[in-house]
Amino acid sequence: MKKFAVVLSGCGVFDGAEIHEAVFTFWAIKKHGADYQAFAPNVDQYHVVNHMTGDEMPEKRNVLVESARIVRGEIKDLKEFRIDDFDGIIFPGGFGAAKNLCDFAFKGENMSVLPEVEEVILQTIKAEKPIGAECISPVIMAKVLEDATVTIGTDESTAKAIEIMGGTNMAMNHKSVCYDPKHKLYTTPCYMMAGDILQVSESAEAIVEAMLKQVRC
Amino acid sequence: MKKFAVVLSGCGVFDGAEIHEAVFTFWAIKKHGADYQAFAPNVDQYHVVNHMTGDEMPEKRNVLVESARIVRGEIKDLKEFRIDDFDGIIFPGGFGAAKNLCDFAFKGENMSVLPEVEEVILQTIKAEKPIGAECISPVIMAKVLEDATVTIGTDESTAKAIEIMGGTNMAMNHKSVCYDPKHKLYTTPCYMMAGDILQVSESAEAIVEAMLKQVRC
Repeated sequence: MKKFAVVLSGCGVFDGAEIHEAVFTFWAIKKHGADYQAFAPNVDQYHVVNHMTGDEMPEKRNVLVESARIVRGEIKDLKEFRIDDFDGIIFPGGFGAAKNLCDFAFKGENMSVLPEVEEVILQTIKAEKPIGAECISPVIMAKVLEDATVTIGTDESTAKAIEIMGGTNMAMNHKSVCYDPKHKLYTTPCYMMAGDILQVSESAEAIVEAMLKQVRC
Repeated sequence: MKKFAVVLSGCGVFDGAEIHEAVFTFWAIKKHGADYQAFAPNVDQYHVVNHMTGDEMPEKRNVLVESARIVRGEIKDLKEFRIDDFDGIIFPGGFGAAKNLCDFAFKGENMSVLPEVEEVILQTIKAEKPIGAECISPVIMAKVLEDATVTIGTDESTAKAIEIMGGTNMAMNHKSVCYDPKHKLYTTPCYMMAGDILQVSESAEAIVEAMLKQVRC
């Protein structure tokens, strides 16, 4: 059975992983006959956001501990990731990808990537296995790979930042998957373009199906 | 367009709403052409559980604020619920249903129900509109309705508590929906029986489809 690693960045769109994107990624993997293991970095969240008001809360939360909520506790520290155990790796989106896995949300094209995140991407590239990135997380690939072709949908400022980092953004809708054969990199807009939860399920299923086709060839 | 209220109880299976059950309930509602509005009570969680270790954390979190994570902020205080605005109401499960919406997790058949939760159930009964309850949340209906027929799957101690409260438990699998015509009450086991995320999606879709058939008749 094919198995994917899925990298979470907290629990909740405004300070962590986008929950719907994460859940439908897991669902699509199972639906298409494969399996998954969730990972997250064992670091503090950049901040904690009240999801009703948008205000910052005076709290500290840990990315790994909060991510565990999405997978009923079945998660591992990203430092334990070994590409030999997996057929590919997928990054759902949410602001957590842009605040906790890297600092794109604050620094744009001058961003840096969390070392353990960069390390698992480079492991996967070296092993010539596919990488999937949803929503805003393609910016991480643009930074690490330097010449990635991705889609984050049609957001102009994000597309421009990707170009400055050496990448190319393809303007695509929520159902589309952008494939970059040089890096075996798959990207899809999810909530960068999707209007509701049903469209997000389509976006997550599309990228999982595309990646499975490759690992089954 | 038919519209359901969905009542959340936090964010994460061990101290709040079961995230997969909540997400697939929203997804199934949209997939079958209806719409939803999420609600949660504006009260403190009973406690906060580290979902990796199972240990209690020395924190306080609010049920409404944490539930908002599952719906990207689009949630209302349960006190604002008016049955006239909806065609039915659905309660996903998770320990939050048994710890925050009532105290079944600690008191079993001697449980009491949060007043605002009881109030919305009684409003819905009075309006003769359908109620759906997933996973462990049928115990709330057993308590409030006193003679409910439900399924929580095959867990013997929970089934016995339901009987002591005047209800009846039908032993059913994850794909089945138990319908109690007296109360227009629909129940399904979700993670009380489901072995994985795919089976939970089937359970949530089954209950939503069954409820939609009734409101469209």
